[in-house]
Amino acid sequence: MSLHKPLYATPQDAEAAFYDAIEHADLEAMMSVWAEDEEIICVHPGGPRLAGYAAVREAWRRIFSGGQRLYVSLSQQIYLTGMLLSVHSLHEHFSLSRDVGPTAPVVATNVYVRGALGWRLMTHHASAAPSDTQADMKKTLH
Amino acid sequence: MSLHKPLYATPQDAEAAFYDAIEHADLEAMMSVWAEDEEIICVHPGGPRLAGYAAVREAWRRIFSGGQRLYVSLSQQIYLTGMLLSVHSLHEHFSLSRDVGPTAPVVATNVYVRGALGWRLMTHHASAAPSDTQADMKKTLH
Repeated sequence: MSLHKPLYATPQDAEAAFYDAIEHADLEAMMSVWAEDEEIICVHPGGPRLAGYAAVREAWRRIFSGGQRLYVSLSQQIYLTGMLLSVHSLHEHFSLSRDVGPTAPVVATNVYVRGALGWRLMTHHASAAPSDTQADMKKTLH
Repeated sequence: MSLHKPLYATPQDAEAAFYDAIEHADLEAMMSVWAEDEEIICVHPGGPRLAGYAAVREAWRRIFSGGQRLYVSLSQQIYLTGMLLSVHSLHEHFSLSRDVGPTAPVVATNVYVRGALGWRLMTHHASAAPSDTQADMKKTLH
């Protein structure tokens, strides 16, 4: 584990760094968010399960190499935090410009783990929701 | 919380009960696996995020009302268990018969939470993997 990496004092700090890395297409920043001591898991929308640092890194490298800047806003966060693990459920909204309105959400489950150097991302599972998804299905079904 | 519900001593026990409920299309057994004290989250493949007991229950009721018996086998389990939370990543393989060979996996992230009455399911996030997915992408990318 390298000591010069940033320390995330809370899972929210790690999450902010994760989405900031996406917006900046910054591979090194992205990978510094992930845990190094665990078998990390990443599932991109429609994609296979990627397990392990090398596979996760290679997929982000390909995504960022496209050169297309992405903006992402988050909504509908639900957190449950324990001593070692923190589970975040949220909606991601991607767009190519800050001026674009809300897009169909990507549903994400992010799990953070606390280690000697603070909180790191252990699992990112993302999947596209149907385009007619309301802001939160809870509102329509309850 | 009802006291007559089963007690799951480990997250693995709760997970076994979850998949057993799917195989038996048993709605009451299914819902007894879920936590009642947390805001539970369920994402079916290609579906929206369902939040809360009522929305999660209604979706399983619809799935089970189809009358089609499903068999499910699991593979590629990766667990990380803390004091309060346990995160399981795995591949689900569904089929209509015990005789059918392996099918394209559904990737699942299951999170269990420990409460007064043992471990319960808090999050089930499932998404279909591409049909050409190997048993584990780690093997092909490393």
